[in-house]
Amino acid sequence: MFEFRVEKADSTCWARVGVFGTPHGDIPTPVFAPVGTQATVKTLTPDELLALEVKLILANTYHLYLRPGAGVVARLGGLHQFMGWPGPILTDSGGFQVFSLEGLRRVTHDGVTFRSHIDGSEHFLSPEKSIEIQEELGADIIMALDECPDPLDYEYNRVALGRTHSWAERCLRTHTRPDQALFGIVQGGVFADLRAESARFVTGLGFPGYAVGGLSVGETKAQTWATLDVTVPLLPPDKPRYLMGVGSPEDLFEGVERGIDIFDCALPTRLARNGALFTSRERVNIRKAEFAEDPRPLEEGCTCYTCQHFSRAYLHHLFKAGEMLGLRLNTIHNVHFLLDVMRRIRVSILAGEFSALKAEFMAQYRPIADESRQRSKALAQGRGKPVHGSQKGQRAIP
Amino acid sequence: MFEFRVEKADSTCWARVGVFGTPHGDIPTPVFAPVGTQATVKTLTPDELLALEVKLILANTYHLYLRPGAGVVARLGGLHQFMGWPGPILTDSGGFQVFSLEGLRRVTHDGVTFRSHIDGSEHFLSPEKSIEIQEELGADIIMALDECPDPLDYEYNRVALGRTHSWAERCLRTHTRPDQALFGIVQGGVFADLRAESARFVTGLGFPGYAVGGLSVGETKAQTWATLDVTVPLLPPDKPRYLMGVGSPEDLFEGVERGIDIFDCALPTRLARNGALFTSRERVNIRKAEFAEDPRPLEEGCTCYTCQHFSRAYLHHLFKAGEMLGLRLNTIHNVHFLLDVMRRIRVSILAGEFSALKAEFMAQYRPIADESRQRSKALAQGRGKPVHGSQKGQRAIP
Repeated sequence: MFEFRVEKADSTCWARVGVFGTPHGDIPTPVFAPVGTQATVKTLTPDELLALEVKLILANTYHLYLRPGAGVVARLGGLHQFMGWPGPILTDSGGFQVFSLEGLRRVTHDGVTFRSHIDGSEHFLSPEKSIEIQEELGADIIMALDECPDPLDYEYNRVALGRTHSWAERCLRTHTRPDQALFGIVQGGVFADLRAESARFVTGLGFPGYAVGGLSVGETKAQTWATLDVTVPLLPPDKPRYLMGVGSPEDLFEGVERGIDIFDCALPTRLARNGALFTSRERVNIRKAEFAEDPRPLEEGCTCYTCQHFSRAYLHHLFKAGEMLGLRLNTIHNVHFLLDVMRRIRVSILAGEFSALKAEFMAQYRPIADESRQRSKALAQGRGKPVHGSQKGQRAIP
Repeated sequence: MFEFRVEKADSTCWARVGVFGTPHGDIPTPVFAPVGTQATVKTLTPDELLALEVKLILANTYHLYLRPGAGVVARLGGLHQFMGWPGPILTDSGGFQVFSLEGLRRVTHDGVTFRSHIDGSEHFLSPEKSIEIQEELGADIIMALDECPDPLDYEYNRVALGRTHSWAERCLRTHTRPDQALFGIVQGGVFADLRAESARFVTGLGFPGYAVGGLSVGETKAQTWATLDVTVPLLPPDKPRYLMGVGSPEDLFEGVERGIDIFDCALPTRLARNGALFTSRERVNIRKAEFAEDPRPLEEGCTCYTCQHFSRAYLHHLFKAGEMLGLRLNTIHNVHFLLDVMRRIRVSILAGEFSALKAEFMAQYRPIADESRQRSKALAQGRGKPVHGSQKGQRAIP
């Protein structure tokens, strides 16, 4: 249980193929986990997730704690039974959402006081409480509570790191269920010395897996990758590495290249509900008038249910008409697209051709490159709303 | 093509089992058609409709004419190809929606001028235009344009009947596609003499099927059934009979008993999106707190995907959390429930046991009986908003 087996490591970069065993099945890595915040990957059934060959989903502790409540989920047999999903599940600690509730929280060494976004009621989240909730939810992989500050604020990160490390110890002490793997999280913003200190401390506690937290929350892409470059080599090679909150097609390549095994992101499903759809060339928006009479599938040759059955014109119509089926079909396509990218990445690593695949993909794909759009998108998603004033520390990775 | 074969008629009432042949397959009758207003049965894929054994769907001419436009649908291969539905489709004439746009229309002998609910643009719907649009959409069964007045206003119905009859003739003259069956519509409110006059006139024109229109739009249930009692016997027994806009479980029994072969209604899908779900005992609302921790399926023994996989507690959670999956699962259940009622009705007629099944169902099922709720529901649905002041005519069926 929770054995991680590396099957093949690339000789030219940190990319690797492996398998992580869980009570609800093996997870082939690298893997992308769609997000099912409220115990449902929005618009999709478990059957559809299985048909898409989803191997891991993420559910949000913060949301499920507030509604329907962790006790309710526990009494109904746990998250797997509650939502009818037979495969592996990962829950976050709840911290990320709580720290996104600007103005609604107080952070102390003990934990975080926050108000529910649903009814304004006051709650307290501590490392112990987070583990207690996650044990009630019953996911296969659970996460230590960490603080996720503005990645560019050195002084704040230095202080917050002390809390995050102490909380990691407390989470480990609290955790009891042997059928759950508790992952530690390395923090430290975009600062190499803090990342090194955090990697040393957290890996010293001996978790079955490690996340690189506090990224993709407002820093530039260059900073994200540079931070991974200095952090991943400090993590044990025989444990899975998880990059939280990352999931654009191009970012999967960048993360895998730097040794990441697990990714999660709400992006593909959220984009789908906004009409933004992945193709092998670029992200397109199905709202655009140019699609109104286009009889072609969204992507020629795509094997997803949407592309096999419906035209761009129909997707355009459904979106314009505000039809839920459009959001479903869009979601199916985007999730399929990302999982297909991951399948091709795994195959390429096994064949020793990862770099070639990455070059080929990048040559064809035009990412949404504009940094300001990335940042505004991150802010709009409630990810990386800087908690404190942004202020570049001297030792920041440029 | 468009042959209607009665396979078995009940000996104690007007109920019968038959088959209506269309270019996209045979429709076993009596049949219930879910409504796919904007070229989608809300939340469901064609695959799910097939799995539910849906045999006929209705699409709304008014909505599709405005968006995406009948020409667009035609250029994309017609409604079947556009929405990926391989089975039979019925389109209404567009008249019902136009007549529901109170204050937005002018009715003359030529047709109706109305404004789009989407952008306020002015449009003109005539019998010729309705048929032209319906030929572009390409459904298997299309409907003559009729006027659908307040069923209780004798004088208005008398005058409107002249228009409806003239429009029926013009529709018949305009219609060209041999792969579409154009149905006539009998109007006349709740007035036996007007219904008789209309049945005589419309059946005299020789349509391959007949609808009883202008019911379920504000009159009492007793008036609905009494009107059917005097109208159906005046329709040719060798043609299918269609009761428009009716589709509660108990109403299916009442309609079948009176000789109706085809039903359509947005009720089961709309109710589902409001959390109101059919069970064999009553309609329940999944929002209610009593379901919050209920581990049972919505209906024990129900074979639908929803009941086979999910608890009441999960459906409750999804609804409270505003998750689209909840609306999907609710829709699947409600459509399955009505189609299952219809399957049992057909089997019972073939076995000569329809009356027994009806008695058994009615003994167990508690309908939403309150007339005022029926009426307010009808109004809220934009069905039967009285176009003119309600005024009971002398010859109204009580």
